[in-house]
Amino acid sequence: MNSSSLVKASHALDASDLAKHFEAVRLQTEALCRPLEIEDYGLQPIPDVSPAKWHLAHTTWFFENFVLAEARPDYERFHPLYHYLYNSYYNLAGKYHPRVARGDISRPTVAEVYQFRRYVTQAVLDLLGSSSEEVLAKIEPTIGLGINHEQQHQELLVTDIKYSLSRNPMEPVYFERASMLSSAEKPALNWLDFGGGLYEVGHEGNGFCFDNESPRHRVFLSDYRIAGRPVTNSEYIEFIEDGGYRRADLWLSDGWDAVRSNDWQAPLYWQQLDGDWYNFTLAGTRKVEPNAPVCHISYYEADAYARWTGKRLPTEAEWEHAAALLPVEGNFVESGLYHPAPLSDSTSQFYGDVWQWTGSAYLPYPGFKPLEGVIGEYNGKFMSGQMVLRGGSCATPRGHIRATYRNFFQLYQRWQFMGFRLAE
Amino acid sequence: MNSSSLVKASHALDASDLAKHFEAVRLQTEALCRPLEIEDYGLQPIPDVSPAKWHLAHTTWFFENFVLAEARPDYERFHPLYHYLYNSYYNLAGKYHPRVARGDISRPTVAEVYQFRRYVTQAVLDLLGSSSEEVLAKIEPTIGLGINHEQQHQELLVTDIKYSLSRNPMEPVYFERASMLSSAEKPALNWLDFGGGLYEVGHEGNGFCFDNESPRHRVFLSDYRIAGRPVTNSEYIEFIEDGGYRRADLWLSDGWDAVRSNDWQAPLYWQQLDGDWYNFTLAGTRKVEPNAPVCHISYYEADAYARWTGKRLPTEAEWEHAAALLPVEGNFVESGLYHPAPLSDSTSQFYGDVWQWTGSAYLPYPGFKPLEGVIGEYNGKFMSGQMVLRGGSCATPRGHIRATYRNFFQLYQRWQFMGFRLAE
Amino acid sequence: MNSSSLVKASHALDASDLAKHFEAVRLQTEALCRPLEIEDYGLQPIPDVSPAKWHLAHTTWFFENFVLAEARPDYERFHPLYHYLYNSYYNLAGKYHPRVARGDISRPTVAEVYQFRRYVTQAVLDLLGSSSEEVLAKIEPTIGLGINHEQQHQELLVTDIKYSLSRNPMEPVYFERASMLSSAEKPALNWLDFGGGLYEVGHEGNGFCFDNESPRHRVFLSDYRIAGRPVTNSEYIEFIEDGGYRRADLWLSDGWDAVRSNDWQAPLYWQQLDGDWYNFTLAGTRKVEPNAPVCHISYYEADAYARWTGKRLPTEAEWEHAAALLPVEGNFVESGLYHPAPLSDSTSQFYGDVWQWTGSAYLPYPGFKPLEGVIGEYNGKFMSGQMVLRGGSCATPRGHIRATYRNFFQLYQRWQFMGFRLAE
Amino acid sequence: MNSSSLVKASHALDASDLAKHFEAVRLQTEALCRPLEIEDYGLQPIPDVSPAKWHLAHTTWFFENFVLAEARPDYERFHPLYHYLYNSYYNLAGKYHPRVARGDISRPTVAEVYQFRRYVTQAVLDLLGSSSEEVLAKIEPTIGLGINHEQQHQELLVTDIKYSLSRNPMEPVYFERASMLSSAEKPALNWLDFGGGLYEVGHEGNGFCFDNESPRHRVFLSDYRIAGRPVTNSEYIEFIEDGGYRRADLWLSDGWDAVRSNDWQAPLYWQQLDGDWYNFTLAGTRKVEPNAPVCHISYYEADAYARWTGKRLPTEAEWEHAAALLPVEGNFVESGLYHPAPLSDSTSQFYGDVWQWTGSAYLPYPGFKPLEGVIGEYNGKFMSGQMVLRGGSCATPRGHIRATYRNFFQLYQRWQFMGFRLAE
Repeated sequence: MNSSSLVKASHALDASDLAKHFEAVRLQTEALCRPLEIEDYGLQPIPDVSPAKWHLAHTTWFFENFVLAEARPDYERFHPLYHYLYNSYYNLAGKYHPRVARGDISRPTVAEVYQFRRYVTQAVLDLLGSSSEEVLAKIEPTIGLGINHEQQHQELLVTDIKYSLSRNPMEPVYFERASMLSSAEKPALNWLDFGGGLYEVGHEGNGFCFDNESPRHRVFLSDYRIAGRPVTNSEYIEFIEDGGYRRADLWLSDGWDAVRSNDWQAPLYWQQLDGDWYNFTLAGTRKVEPNAPVCHISYYEADAYARWTGKRLPTEAEWEHAAALLPVEGNFVESGLYHPAPLSDSTSQFYGDVWQWTGSAYLPYPGFKPLEGVIGEYNGKFMSGQMVLRGGSCATPRGHIRATYRNFFQLYQRWQFMGFRLAE
Repeated sequence: MNSSSLVKASHALDASDLAKHFEAVRLQTEALCRPLEIEDYGLQPIPDVSPAKWHLAHTTWFFENFVLAEARPDYERFHPLYHYLYNSYYNLAGKYHPRVARGDISRPTVAEVYQFRRYVTQAVLDLLGSSSEEVLAKIEPTIGLGINHEQQHQELLVTDIKYSLSRNPMEPVYFERASMLSSAEKPALNWLDFGGGLYEVGHEGNGFCFDNESPRHRVFLSDYRIAGRPVTNSEYIEFIEDGGYRRADLWLSDGWDAVRSNDWQAPLYWQQLDGDWYNFTLAGTRKVEPNAPVCHISYYEADAYARWTGKRLPTEAEWEHAAALLPVEGNFVESGLYHPAPLSDSTSQFYGDVWQWTGSAYLPYPGFKPLEGVIGEYNGKFMSGQMVLRGGSCATPRGHIRATYRNFFQLYQRWQFMGFRLAE
Repeated sequence: MNSSSLVKASHALDASDLAKHFEAVRLQTEALCRPLEIEDYGLQPIPDVSPAKWHLAHTTWFFENFVLAEARPDYERFHPLYHYLYNSYYNLAGKYHPRVARGDISRPTVAEVYQFRRYVTQAVLDLLGSSSEEVLAKIEPTIGLGINHEQQHQELLVTDIKYSLSRNPMEPVYFERASMLSSAEKPALNWLDFGGGLYEVGHEGNGFCFDNESPRHRVFLSDYRIAGRPVTNSEYIEFIEDGGYRRADLWLSDGWDAVRSNDWQAPLYWQQLDGDWYNFTLAGTRKVEPNAPVCHISYYEADAYARWTGKRLPTEAEWEHAAALLPVEGNFVESGLYHPAPLSDSTSQFYGDVWQWTGSAYLPYPGFKPLEGVIGEYNGKFMSGQMVLRGGSCATPRGHIRATYRNFFQLYQRWQFMGFRLAE
Repeated sequence: MNSSSLVKASHALDASDLAKHFEAVRLQTEALCRPLEIEDYGLQPIPDVSPAKWHLAHTTWFFENFVLAEARPDYERFHPLYHYLYNSYYNLAGKYHPRVARGDISRPTVAEVYQFRRYVTQAVLDLLGSSSEEVLAKIEPTIGLGINHEQQHQELLVTDIKYSLSRNPMEPVYFERASMLSSAEKPALNWLDFGGGLYEVGHEGNGFCFDNESPRHRVFLSDYRIAGRPVTNSEYIEFIEDGGYRRADLWLSDGWDAVRSNDWQAPLYWQQLDGDWYNFTLAGTRKVEPNAPVCHISYYEADAYARWTGKRLPTEAEWEHAAALLPVEGNFVESGLYHPAPLSDSTSQFYGDVWQWTGSAYLPYPGFKPLEGVIGEYNGKFMSGQMVLRGGSCATPRGHIRATYRNFFQLYQRWQFMGFRLAE
């Protein structure tokens, strides 16, 4: 976020509200880990997936390094090596442990990492409780950023745990829940029509935003229609059954390579048993729910499906323009489902359930300025080779999402809760 | 290109003009190969580089398959296996030989491929000379596309030959030329200022264009400035000497990975000897010309240089808006230099010398429709993972380029004549 | 081992002795894991290294599958999926979990694996206590094999834990011990001379042996000399300082490739600080002890060192002939050092401290017959691409080793306690 | 070869005989290339296969570097860069071009390489014609080695050309020949019985040998039987049809990995069409001849077949002991078939047709000493990771083979003419 929005963000809260919010978010991260066995905390089955223990420690390091060590010259770090172990990718902050080897670190133990968390949480609370107005004005934007950063990692915790557990033939269950099979009625598909024109997108105002959402700027949109809901599992199954994964002409060239080299035949976590489709969920292996949004698909698959229908993905500007006036409601992490829910006729599902791939590459907005200093590496340096997703998912904290929020992943990625809606 | 522009393109020519143009382009391809030894025709040192023989045959197959076999039911293909060997990537046209193994094909011999060329060239000329108006109307767009396709491969021929010869410690010389060391005077850098507003970009009208250049559409541009000339070698050397290749903070994350894994320390083909920079050229190893545009750099390098200066790359719309009114003049393949020339104060170098990386991802224009049928795989399926380059280079045929032309490559590629200009 | 030796082995013990021995070995495996944190049990930093938890479970599966399930038709396996998870490589026993993914399995938990161990240990003890003579005669050979199998995994436990902990910059300490720096006196090097002739090697008689040690057979040996002790660290440091790792002429071709691609400059676990050599040990990072046998080197390094001295490695027959009459004494796992000890003038170190690379490829003895059935996959199928090592190490149980014992590893491996002695 | 055998070898010839022999071998290499198009000379479809042009130049470099540059201080090398380009692997002779990139070198042209050959051939002939007795005594051993070296490359030329042409769907034919389908009668399989005892193997005496064949030394062999002929195609087809490639229990562990990762289902060059087996040969694709020795199989396949029959491969000592007294007769390169011929009842096929895998690893003989100097890298440094083959093949020059000759390849290699015979 640029520094002006950071400052504004901080002014919206007084220090004690901020302290409460901070503490609540910190506790929520730990709550998400409660179902885990100690053995689960260290798993890193693929380089993209980080161990739960690493998420717990890295989000803590963020506050230690960017808030405490900055604000208090006498601050004593919890352990001198944690700076090396839990810096994720900030080159300006020094050398860091290779991402691929995060799963090789058994010490600190889980208990020690929780101690680290308590140590830092308390130190931040102390700082908030004891700082002058002037100091508060300086630290609040970074604490705000740290809170949002930790919320991002809450989502990654859920998706990484899901991926890690899915690789175990024991099929561990993260939590028990009843089935949520939807009604047989397929939800209606309404199209929302928008007239072309010059519109504004991007963030502005008092609330928190990341630097990549600003500045707010004008874009020209032609007339367009956008689907009133995401594509569902039952619709996607039609694509599969029509040979979608075997027809090169439906795919981007890189996508077709991905299909063949990974032998993709369905979304991630899906398997077919006796003619029925099942998917691995955090509540165990369940039948695929026909009327829930299709999920765990790559950009390539979303794009191929769109081509199969003769439609396309919306751009991120189209999506934002359509979503901007809608209330931020939906199936977020707080619902405790950790899975997309069946759609009903009345919901638009712009928010929650599944991140929606757009047809826009993740690039800087006109006039984009990264944050100053080390923290400028937060977003800007990833602006190549990725596509934008919008809307949040069933693993996103409700308070973390907004119309202007830009998520981004490589085109082949599938392990996030990723789906899409059509446009034309 | 969409079918309407194809039709229009064809109407601009009568059949005999088209025949002359066709024949000239066919001969020009062969002229480019004249300096080669038979042994040079088969080289494929890396998968991205195709053998010269393959280019000669593939461009011929294009006419055989999309023109002759379509238009003449009785047409007898020159050899039944060439369809498999020289189809590049059209999945709808059937299976094809793997790209990585093009260099493994010693037969047909070079002589046989030239026979194949003559056979097909003559058959197209016969067809043009003997077809009814109605048939002509049908085949002329595809012949026009085939001509432009062959011109694209003329450029690839030059760049692939350069790369292939560069790998030989014997340092073969493609052609002899005198030195073109520029004056000591550094060319002035003027900035062109444009006010923001709603503009149109994309192709429209009678001339030929590829499908990816259309439809013409409106975009909103904020106020911007664009450099009046590309970045030069001497400017780029300052970046190198300032530690540009060793400072992670200047690079995109993927770019920094590329720097380290490829050990990049300078543009492709450069080496430092006794403190001076030299580069491999098609006329042998020469001293780097300080005032020529820097060339053979990746998107990552262009982006890092721009960040080092506090500026950025132009978007493709900005570039096109600035270039649209300029005459298409510059150092093209016809100059016979096969190398970027030193800049003078008076030229803008929007066209020729070096393709210019833009900050725009290669994506479909709003309303884009690929060509119908097999040939729809020409451009559309590559619209992921690449960035747009504009303006043509010293290896581009002069008649092939225009303001709306969109070239595209992966961000790590360097073997084309690639440079950039700044914007802000 | 062939069935006759198995039967003989079993007759050396009565059932109650066997039960005691079995139980002691089972407990010893668990004792080796006592210093571990739960988080340590799951580490698999490279495919060759298995998690401690896996070793605990796999050795248990061996008894469950080859003893209990064979002997008791009503035997109920502890968990149906463990057969898949903890079969290591027996294709005839069915599909098994990929080796590379052993570290991805967080469930069963460590506690559950210990339950599995107790369940199976008790079931074997019950079986031993309740079986008829006839049944005992059938199961004792396999129990004997399972005991020896478990001892092999005890050694792997130690070496795998060492490797796994070494990858952690926190440098976890497995156990605390005082320094064991040796006297400044370099141990004398005596050569043992043997006249050529026709000798017998291989196992025969009552004791246990693996199938690959038999049959005993005649070999012709020319006159040879074999070093009275292994090469020491101080001797090896001379090789390093003489440029041993930079001189291609000293190396096998494959070895030189390994040096360059792995950037080997010293034995595994070594690093140089301020001119002194240190090595990672299970008691932390310690100074290299000059008079201890060099350890953690590949076959290629042993071979290069030998070439540097103008000598060679002994063949396995030479080694066995020299070692056959010596008592099996030395620094084994029972010493609790988990590290090679400094040499003295009086010991031969044929046994213990370090496995000694021989110049013999691991191939079947003339007349070799693998065990019958599934268990025939134990040794025979690995008889390609490996070299034989002899003598046991500081991680080998004392009762597990003998003169005829053939260990074997790929030539590039270094993570076992591997050293060598010279011959000529 | 050790220096004494080299000297003896040279004394067997006077200078003029040597010159004639030298010239004949040089011409024979070129004769093997006569069927090639210029385009064929540069092919290197896989790193193990070298271009024909490289073989022509490398064998020439061998004489230039080891004979001419040594013997004549005033000798002027044909081109200064050829020393870099055509040194294969002699590290002590300086840096050399990477093996994997031999196919990237289009210049020198084929014509220039032939010039290089003539230049060096003439210079060696001049040297032989003008040297004193003393000089002759010094150079003759190296010329003898160069001749044998060139003969080895003649075989590689044939096998590399075969492999390179096989990758082309045009299926180029190297030479035309009539079918050689054998009689329907399966050749008898006689077993040769040998009593155990102490025997001598290895080379001794006046003829030429490589250093790896000496010294002659004693080995003890137990009683053994060895098959009177190699395994035939029809026998091998039974193995295939019995599911040989699908039964893990028949394979070495590394072999089974090779089967699965390469998807081996038959020997190299084989394909099944309408139930019949065909194989690619230098005379085109032909039906597999049932009674010819099976060919183009790896060590793993030979070993698996042997296990399937309950037999084994002979050791190299067994093979040599059996073959030593037989005349060196068989189907060699001079027969012009370039393919194994059908067996008859009367021939033993110890020599010619196919190299026969033995069960012996390629290791130094007791007392082995490599040649002095740079040329010591010829054989010794490859003594790891390979198995010994014996007997020569249909691509071996008749005068090049003998009972003591040790060929060696990695266990997965198949592109040489490799077969096997059984023992027990």
